Amino acid sequence: MTDRVLDGVTSDPVAMGWMQGMPPPLERRIVAAHADHMRFPTNRYAYSNMREFLPTLNVARGQGAARALPVALRDDIDAIVFTPLGDGAPVRWDDGLIGNYTDGIVVLHRGAVVYDRWFGVTGPQSRHIVFSVTKSFVGTVAEMLIEQGLLDPSAPVVDFVPELARSGFGDATVRQVMDMTTALDFSEDYTDPTSGIGAFSAALGLTPRPPGYAGPQDLYAYLPTVAKAGTHGERFTYRTCNTEVLGWIVARIEGQRLHRVLSDRLWGPLGLADDADMLVDSAGTPFAGGGLNPTLHDLARFGEALRLDGAGVIPPAAVARIRAGGDRAHFAQADYPQLPGWSYRSQWWISHDAHETFSARGIHGQTLHVDPAAEMVVARFASHPIAANGANDVLSLPAWAALAEHLQRG
Amino acid sequence: MTDRVLDGVTSDPVAMGWMQGMPPPLERRIVAAHADHMRFPTNRYAYSNMREFLPTLNVARGQGAARALPVALRDDIDAIVFTPLGDGAPVRWDDGLIGNYTDGIVVLHRGAVVYDRWFGVTGPQSRHIVFSVTKSFVGTVAEMLIEQGLLDPSAPVVDFVPELARSGFGDATVRQVMDMTTALDFSEDYTDPTSGIGAFSAALGLTPRPPGYAGPQDLYAYLPTVAKAGTHGERFTYRTCNTEVLGWIVARIEGQRLHRVLSDRLWGPLGLADDADMLVDSAGTPFAGGGLNPTLHDLARFGEALRLDGAGVIPPAAVARIRAGGDRAHFAQADYPQLPGWSYRSQWWISHDAHETFSARGIHGQTLHVDPAAEMVVARFASHPIAANGANDVLSLPAWAALAEHLQRG
Repeated sequence: MTDRVLDGVTSDPVAMGWMQGMPPPLERRIVAAHADHMRFPTNRYAYSNMREFLPTLNVARGQGAARALPVALRDDIDAIVFTPLGDGAPVRWDDGLIGNYTDGIVVLHRGAVVYDRWFGVTGPQSRHIVFSVTKSFVGTVAEMLIEQGLLDPSAPVVDFVPELARSGFGDATVRQVMDMTTALDFSEDYTDPTSGIGAFSAALGLTPRPPGYAGPQDLYAYLPTVAKAGTHGERFTYRTCNTEVLGWIVARIEGQRLHRVLSDRLWGPLGLADDADMLVDSAGTPFAGGGLNPTLHDLARFGEALRLDGAGVIPPAAVARIRAGGDRAHFAQADYPQLPGWSYRSQWWISHDAHETFSARGIHGQTLHVDPAAEMVVARFASHPIAANGANDVLSLPAWAALAEHLQRG
Repeated sequence: MTDRVLDGVTSDPVAMGWMQGMPPPLERRIVAAHADHMRFPTNRYAYSNMREFLPTLNVARGQGAARALPVALRDDIDAIVFTPLGDGAPVRWDDGLIGNYTDGIVVLHRGAVVYDRWFGVTGPQSRHIVFSVTKSFVGTVAEMLIEQGLLDPSAPVVDFVPELARSGFGDATVRQVMDMTTALDFSEDYTDPTSGIGAFSAALGLTPRPPGYAGPQDLYAYLPTVAKAGTHGERFTYRTCNTEVLGWIVARIEGQRLHRVLSDRLWGPLGLADDADMLVDSAGTPFAGGGLNPTLHDLARFGEALRLDGAGVIPPAAVARIRAGGDRAHFAQADYPQLPGWSYRSQWWISHDAHETFSARGIHGQTLHVDPAAEMVVARFASHPIAANGANDVLSLPAWAALAEHLQRG
């Protein structure tokens, strides 16, 4: 990134003309071989069109009826004013959306759509990559398996995936993987191509591999190479490789690949309205840690199901375990100054605030935020220039809180 | 290919275990980088799962209701016996399906499903590549545009695509492209990687490019390089590049890419039940000549619409022009000994037989066969080891004729 980054208006992908024209002129193309699909500002087009650039699997909605989402739009939300984290000047709600490079946002209150906005190339039918929000879908399924007695969270990972015996996961438990308290030689620094997540991405094939690349060719070839560093179960450290292991466990238990598990366990039973796309590696393995591309309304429906204790599909006890959160002392050892007192549980972020809010979070601003006290769900797609969510939390977290307070007032 | 080719039973992709296991063992993987998805016998899995290996666009069905397909299955079809082309011994209908490496087949009689069979990994929800059957969708849309006065078939191609002025298409008309009577230096020999279709495929990126490839990077960069060879309008020669040009014209007129045109013009109005996948090149151009992956029932619905004079969606005059066929003398100059007296019109194959049958045909056995006299539509997916349809016509054409006769008897 340069010092001067296009803002939320000037980076609008329609205004910039990405992929417009038949064919688009060379300077307006998004070329996967150049990794344009993962780079700002071309990501503002690409994140709503990932299947155009990469192989994908279909997460099928099944043949049933979609769960209705009543619409009761309100016109009093854009004028909400909130104070950003830190010492920023007050910001209007609608300006905050631009400030965070929002591609789409839907707010449910008591189950009805009270607000939606679409930007750039993104609309209600867009399947937008949600990156690590994917993890929360996987964690939810894992909790469902626990509730059914099919998965013992205290069992060793290697009971399900013996291929990992000699890796850093060799003496980890399922719960440690679910709550990301494993101790591994794996850094999640998105700005460092030599980090663990860099090697992970090369194995996955999300972007072109370096010339002469001789590393692992797929996710399940990569995971056994992750070494241990420290002692499991002592602290929370966010590492995407944990979710690939959890996805592997879930797929082994269910006897089918993760995209079909999500379809059978969640998409069909919850009445999600549209198919989703899921990124896949060269061995046919769905990218459990970040490959899901749902519609925004389906993301909101999923959040609403969590708000409603599982909506008759996810066992209430499974939802309760998620919402109760993880070990806050473990979380406090990680460096999240904007998330004081939070914890991480079963691939969800738990705030432990007065509203007992909890969230699914993905890089570049993907968010599913559930506020039980305010009976509110916020689903947001974004394409922020900065991957780490610390960059957008400054505006996002106080915006959600101000909206909740506003809706509670009636 | 070797002298010994697996037969329709031994090449079953489930029996062969392709992509089974999490992860599949190396010897059971289908790797796009090795072109496995386009090679027998791995194609028997891949043709029903192309989006797992290649980037795709979504052909959206829209939000309306699907057109109902009544089901009235008959149990007297498998025992039909027919005589293969040439001097073969009589063959049972169900044995013929195996002989032609069928992946799925649906037969409509008077609009109802009277027969269906599924093989290997292919089922009613599978989106199977139909290769050049795609062309007939494009040609149908072109005829719709002609009927609306938006496209003059006698106009020069360059009126719509000036980029082709210096190519072999520079003095061709739209009709010559539609009916493939252009004279071009382009061979459609699928077994010769140095042929025109080989260079075309490299530009498209359907399979990995040779090391050091420095040719065109996408379809619309390739088409202007096609040279003229002979005189347009004198004979039919099957060349896929014509359809890319037609798709380009259609997209220019409609002001949107072809996958959206197909969605708006056909998928939505015809009430097709499911989205389809469409292969796309690195410039975002859908592969008009062969990139469509619909469900088999939707393919059958499209054929039924053609049988019913457009079903209120395609103007009857457009359908009539297709069904009337093209110039039989032009066709006779091409080498199709199994298709005597046929013609090619607007990207459809017209038999001019007593039943006035017409077909959409794609390599490896993809077929949409319409028999107006017998009120019959046959939609078939296949993964024959040999690309050219001459290999499966030996069994297919007499099978369709015998079935038509059988259904006509009541």
